[in-house]
Amino acid sequence: MTGASAELPAGLLNEIVFDARGLVPAIAQQHDTGEVLMVAWMNREAIEESLRTGRACYWSRSRGALWRKGETSGQVQALIELRLDCDGDTVLLLVDQTGVACHTGRRSCFFRAVRDGKLTTIAEVVTDPAELYADKD
Amino acid sequence: MTGASAELPAGLLNEIVFDARGLVPAIAQQHDTGEVLMVAWMNREAIEESLRTGRACYWSRSRGALWRKGETSGQVQALIELRLDCDGDTVLLLVDQTGVACHTGRRSCFFRAVRDGKLTTIAEVVTDPAELYADKD
Repeated sequence: MTGASAELPAGLLNEIVFDARGLVPAIAQQHDTGEVLMVAWMNREAIEESLRTGRACYWSRSRGALWRKGETSGQVQALIELRLDCDGDTVLLLVDQTGVACHTGRRSCFFRAVRDGKLTTIAEVVTDPAELYADKD
Repeated sequence: MTGASAELPAGLLNEIVFDARGLVPAIAQQHDTGEVLMVAWMNREAIEESLRTGRACYWSRSRGALWRKGETSGQVQALIELRLDCDGDTVLLLVDQTGVACHTGRRSCFFRAVRDGKLTTIAEVVTDPAELYADKD
């Protein structure tokens, strides 16, 4: 765990139930349309940074590092509000998503649905992923 | 794990990434307002039952049993659509919630928010929890 110096709002830290890895799942929701965009993980430091900077920052389990959403792709999320559920083990981020949330270039990661007894793709690619990740380090 | 006989729509089972316990997190969202109501867990059997019956059914980790939402409280969730995210490790249920989703008697479990630097309760109790769970075994 990192983030020993991170300061969190009064009462928040004691109310969040981090798992054994020091992580809590976070749902990102577009604040005005209500669209559920993605789910990722946050640690204490990611929560502190998100609240301090007003931009959603997650914890990348694969990279083992803070993941400032949009840092590579430009598809940033302005943080409107952070909410916590009743048992404190899930965070809900109301955000304003620039562009697309999903690495496939779709607005939301939840682009597959069961319809007519089949798993069906229900959303189009808005931005070619090659564009999202081109010319970025 | 149970549910060996459960049948799932073509393609769905292979696309869902269950964890080591055979579980996947599920977000319940009110289908028309977009309100995020709660997060719970599903196993294969809970998914199969939800799709077959049209009512949300979860897996209760504390009870180690299927949790037919609303069975005790009457606060059932009609299943409108089941969606899956890009990496298959989170399910989104679009539901029509009868009454309240939260055991505290509030509509949504996400009733606390960071506002003005403090964790604040932002939603009122709609139904007294004593009423929700009274006279039910």
